[in-house]
Amino acid sequence: MSLNTFGHVFRVTTWGESHGPALGCTVDGCPPGIALAEADIQPWLDKRKPGQSKFTTQRREDDLVEILSGTFEGRTTGTPIQLMIRNTDQRSKDYGEIATKFRPGHADITYHQKYGLRDPRGGGRSSARETAARVAAGAVARAVLAQLAPKVEITGYMVQMGPRAIDRARVDMAEIGRNPFWCPDAAAAADWADYLDVLRKDGNSVGAVIEVVAKGVPAGLGAPVYGKLDSDLAAAMMTINAVKGVEIGAGMAAATLTGVENADEISMGPDGPAFSSNHAGGILGGISTGQDVVVRFAVKPTSSILTPRRTITVAGEEAQIVTKGRHDPCVGIRAVPVGEAMMACVILDHLMLDRAQTGGERGKIG
Amino acid sequence: MSLNTFGHVFRVTTWGESHGPALGCTVDGCPPGIALAEADIQPWLDKRKPGQSKFTTQRREDDLVEILSGTFEGRTTGTPIQLMIRNTDQRSKDYGEIATKFRPGHADITYHQKYGLRDPRGGGRSSARETAARVAAGAVARAVLAQLAPKVEITGYMVQMGPRAIDRARVDMAEIGRNPFWCPDAAAAADWADYLDVLRKDGNSVGAVIEVVAKGVPAGLGAPVYGKLDSDLAAAMMTINAVKGVEIGAGMAAATLTGVENADEISMGPDGPAFSSNHAGGILGGISTGQDVVVRFAVKPTSSILTPRRTITVAGEEAQIVTKGRHDPCVGIRAVPVGEAMMACVILDHLMLDRAQTGGERGKIG
Amino acid sequence: MSLNTFGHVFRVTTWGESHGPALGCTVDGCPPGIALAEADIQPWLDKRKPGQSKFTTQRREDDLVEILSGTFEGRTTGTPIQLMIRNTDQRSKDYGEIATKFRPGHADITYHQKYGLRDPRGGGRSSARETAARVAAGAVARAVLAQLAPKVEITGYMVQMGPRAIDRARVDMAEIGRNPFWCPDAAAAADWADYLDVLRKDGNSVGAVIEVVAKGVPAGLGAPVYGKLDSDLAAAMMTINAVKGVEIGAGMAAATLTGVENADEISMGPDGPAFSSNHAGGILGGISTGQDVVVRFAVKPTSSILTPRRTITVAGEEAQIVTKGRHDPCVGIRAVPVGEAMMACVILDHLMLDRAQTGGERGKIG
Amino acid sequence: MSLNTFGHVFRVTTWGESHGPALGCTVDGCPPGIALAEADIQPWLDKRKPGQSKFTTQRREDDLVEILSGTFEGRTTGTPIQLMIRNTDQRSKDYGEIATKFRPGHADITYHQKYGLRDPRGGGRSSARETAARVAAGAVARAVLAQLAPKVEITGYMVQMGPRAIDRARVDMAEIGRNPFWCPDAAAAADWADYLDVLRKDGNSVGAVIEVVAKGVPAGLGAPVYGKLDSDLAAAMMTINAVKGVEIGAGMAAATLTGVENADEISMGPDGPAFSSNHAGGILGGISTGQDVVVRFAVKPTSSILTPRRTITVAGEEAQIVTKGRHDPCVGIRAVPVGEAMMACVILDHLMLDRAQTGGERGKIG
Repeated sequence: MSLNTFGHVFRVTTWGESHGPALGCTVDGCPPGIALAEADIQPWLDKRKPGQSKFTTQRREDDLVEILSGTFEGRTTGTPIQLMIRNTDQRSKDYGEIATKFRPGHADITYHQKYGLRDPRGGGRSSARETAARVAAGAVARAVLAQLAPKVEITGYMVQMGPRAIDRARVDMAEIGRNPFWCPDAAAAADWADYLDVLRKDGNSVGAVIEVVAKGVPAGLGAPVYGKLDSDLAAAMMTINAVKGVEIGAGMAAATLTGVENADEISMGPDGPAFSSNHAGGILGGISTGQDVVVRFAVKPTSSILTPRRTITVAGEEAQIVTKGRHDPCVGIRAVPVGEAMMACVILDHLMLDRAQTGGERGKIG
Repeated sequence: MSLNTFGHVFRVTTWGESHGPALGCTVDGCPPGIALAEADIQPWLDKRKPGQSKFTTQRREDDLVEILSGTFEGRTTGTPIQLMIRNTDQRSKDYGEIATKFRPGHADITYHQKYGLRDPRGGGRSSARETAARVAAGAVARAVLAQLAPKVEITGYMVQMGPRAIDRARVDMAEIGRNPFWCPDAAAAADWADYLDVLRKDGNSVGAVIEVVAKGVPAGLGAPVYGKLDSDLAAAMMTINAVKGVEIGAGMAAATLTGVENADEISMGPDGPAFSSNHAGGILGGISTGQDVVVRFAVKPTSSILTPRRTITVAGEEAQIVTKGRHDPCVGIRAVPVGEAMMACVILDHLMLDRAQTGGERGKIG
Repeated sequence: MSLNTFGHVFRVTTWGESHGPALGCTVDGCPPGIALAEADIQPWLDKRKPGQSKFTTQRREDDLVEILSGTFEGRTTGTPIQLMIRNTDQRSKDYGEIATKFRPGHADITYHQKYGLRDPRGGGRSSARETAARVAAGAVARAVLAQLAPKVEITGYMVQMGPRAIDRARVDMAEIGRNPFWCPDAAAAADWADYLDVLRKDGNSVGAVIEVVAKGVPAGLGAPVYGKLDSDLAAAMMTINAVKGVEIGAGMAAATLTGVENADEISMGPDGPAFSSNHAGGILGGISTGQDVVVRFAVKPTSSILTPRRTITVAGEEAQIVTKGRHDPCVGIRAVPVGEAMMACVILDHLMLDRAQTGGERGKIG
Repeated sequence: MSLNTFGHVFRVTTWGESHGPALGCTVDGCPPGIALAEADIQPWLDKRKPGQSKFTTQRREDDLVEILSGTFEGRTTGTPIQLMIRNTDQRSKDYGEIATKFRPGHADITYHQKYGLRDPRGGGRSSARETAARVAAGAVARAVLAQLAPKVEITGYMVQMGPRAIDRARVDMAEIGRNPFWCPDAAAAADWADYLDVLRKDGNSVGAVIEVVAKGVPAGLGAPVYGKLDSDLAAAMMTINAVKGVEIGAGMAAATLTGVENADEISMGPDGPAFSSNHAGGILGGISTGQDVVVRFAVKPTSSILTPRRTITVAGEEAQIVTKGRHDPCVGIRAVPVGEAMMACVILDHLMLDRAQTGGERGKIG
């Protein structure tokens, strides 16, 4: 991964700040001949866009995507696809105080330390607006996967808000679209609505855990050492704003298991190997097994809160800060479609890398 | 990250299998004029090498490193450094059964699925032997850091074995070298010795959590989006064998915090900004703050166990497998120096990347 | 170099086709704090833009550049700089016949062979319009060089049109801007005007040789093997449309020299080593010597000509083709500012790479 | 291309100096299941090795290659292949004077300027010994091509020594192996023998031009802009020691042609498109046409000569230098197998990249 590019052969370069005229991305290496129009991308952006409920920032952005290159008559040509999204609601007045004071827990201070200057109108590149470009890229990846690996199905959802986790026994995937939290447990969603309302009115915020699952991923994607599928997934998720932890399958809890417990026993199923469980999260030795690829990541609470916090100014003076402006009380909500997009890009990139090296013909079992 | 290379400008390419004649790595992009001899590398390899207690594999390897290129009269020349380690104890007879049966939880099956063949004498590239090459590369990175950023100090230790975590109140860094587990809590280490003994005699294994801390890292390393310091750390740790989760600072627990709790408040200290806490793990917006950089990762239990597990053969027949041979009951132990090595490589790589872009002159505060 | 990206740490990704709505580039890794506005870029684009004399295509494009990201209050922020140029004169009707027939000497056929489809309205990515994005990126590189290495001065000019070379004895750099060919030899320029007029009226075209010189490049840029400064320059120039040969210093003629003739003898000058000649073109062993860096490249004649040529159709039928539309009788003319831009990008990239590895402090002589 | 790595998905990292214990390379990304043993590599090394006639350096190296990883039972496993060659005849006494004086036309001075130190026993990484590693890697590429694209046939030969070019009318490919110059023109070879003998006895040296042709390359390899097949070939050839110019097809002479002359007219042949000529050198718009891929490069004369030349010392004092030691009077001779190896690596890399993006199914014509 380069500074603003990710991917090996399906490569995405994003650009744009929260308060500039536009943002977007270049998708390079896309296979040719794939059906692709703005209408294939827009629904995913709509899913991510702000202001859809009282639980997300009230900034209003239509997030309309324009395809500026790389397609002809509704098909990809194999050349770079430029996707641009205009910023329309960049009310920079709201951000006055943060020009000179650093928000605790925010990138303000490190930007200043690294670059010696920063755009004080907003978060610049550290703003969650950057993730719109990823979602657009992810939509392209999905369109390609639909043709090259049509069984792949990617779904993200929230499994924990603050200390409140879903009950796995109550999970119903059909619930995900029915509440503002992308939560598969209706009871948890109702509980979170009350919980977040209180925090929001308090000028506080809270963290969350997101899970993204890719079903139908062919066995054999990834590579043993630094090209591990899980390593690229971990990197991809960790690049999302505010993410502080990433897990594959059993994740951190794998530490608590014995070898007997952790072994996903293998049998022959109708379509090849079948497994008694999925502690591996669909990846063994960096390579996909054909099981569901399962990734989870933790999103910290927004640092832009109304409760005063101690800080310093650029001049080094001690100060207090309260962040007004329009912020998400739980940024984890909007991270769901972003996590899905990253999964789509990584899976496709490895599918293409794999066919480069092996031709994509799997080693037969049985 | 490429298939067998990691790093942007300080780049390490590893090679070699568990049962081949040798393994090693090429360290490319190393600054010139750095004092470096085998004696600077060997102690780190000795720390990682197997067979040092009854709690690690009984395979005997001296892991003697040879510098084959890239130095002259004890100094690096700026050209690629080749580090080679001969394998001396590759008793392949022990591995007979795994040639035709797949170990549940092991890369055997995915290697076969991807490549259509694999080296049945051992784990090949998925063997923990590969990590010797990383430790050697990490020693080079430490030698460079000693000159370019002499305040950097990197320490790894185990904080949890199975469900048994250390007590942070009892931590004494001086304890780390006094027990076979790199554990900073003497009481926990004693407890783990008994616990692991029972598991080992049962032919079972167990997971662990490792923490690696880098002190003295200058503020300003990393970049906002896909060049995040934490993203590269996550990728680096996830490439270590058997790792299933990676955390920065508060990690997965960041999800449980409110914005008020999570804010690391800032004041002016004698050497620049000081922070009231370190939920951020020393990284904000992908860029180092000057605080300790804190990474944790979970290592799953070894899949090579003596308890029979259900599996299938290459021919697709159902079978049972028991893995004899010499294996680590808790591979997490030997992952400690590997995690340190990865930290050293990533920190140095970003130090060099940063001076490429910014010249390494920090934005002044105060 | 990746498919649509060049550079190691100063990385440029271009996008856009000849007949799409816009084209542009993302400049990633740019140092922060550099003064940069549209007005710093536009003059270079104006130099390259079509329709400035009867000797270049009559397509009318203003090539107005917009900076969409990466600057704040007239300075670079260290984040990706997006430069966009709208296409305004994409008269696609002119291109009717080439939709089904392949132009001999043109990328039409290979695009079809590779991608199975292509944009028949124009050259797509193989159009010289893509080079506008390079020129814009080169202007950014020049702005950075002006601050980091202010002695660097880059000049391109044409030294040969068809078989007619300039006379080195008549070279006057001040002439370059005074004729439509960027020719430093006024007599040659006058001769070329007549020569090209005849070819143009005949519906023919002709090749050219361009030379680009960078003065003031610090010694020490580049690396011995695959990171050679000359290798990256050769790659960069060869990526320009229609280039079929690249030379450094003595170039192909180096083959004709003996070792005695080729040796650029060294003495001590007032500012360090001085050389009796520059057969090396300023580069020894892949690393800059401090002498002028001298690159030449040959541009073949445009394949879009009015003289009928034998070809085949997409259906495989034999046919004849005459390419109407607006084309350059000597594309080499407009390649001059493009070559300069590539030189600027490569020099800056290596300056940054060098300070990553060595800190940029040169080994003293004397 | 990175400092010591080349290739996108078939990646080769070389290491080792002229006077260290060994040199070699890591071949990463190699497809699995390819038959490969030392015996497949050694013949190519034997072709390149020094001391085979009085016209090459009298240094005696057996250049025996050892495969240290990446194969099992004579087949590649898909993991990194380490190829090591021991240096056996590194008589460093011969090099005494060059420790303190810089050879004009040699990398001595730039190494010192960049790194502040260098290995004075020989050329270090700038020595032609590095090319043994490339030839070994090229042999691996050939083995893979034999399976994936069995029609590909790569042949290199010398077409010019000093000012003396071959006569194309006398070319007989069968002659190439019958003279010490890899010359396809027997009369020219006889002439060169006399010519070089005189130069050699004079303590002088001379340049050469090498041509490398790849027949049977499928149409569709490469990409339009920065991933051009010809750009990667130019970079690859320019990384070979002493190369100062690279040409594709008509090369620098393309500048002298008109569009009418340059057009390679197209007709339908029995196996697809056929061309009336090959000015394009088998590449249009960066993508292969299916014609022969033709690359030429110029090698300058060795700078290590017995004729005294003016130079300076590390201390900056003016001096004279005569380079004793064992050097090639025409290094171009030994560059022939190196050029072939680079061609093999680049063609394979693009074959793999192409199947990553397009699946390798060509767009049909007719």
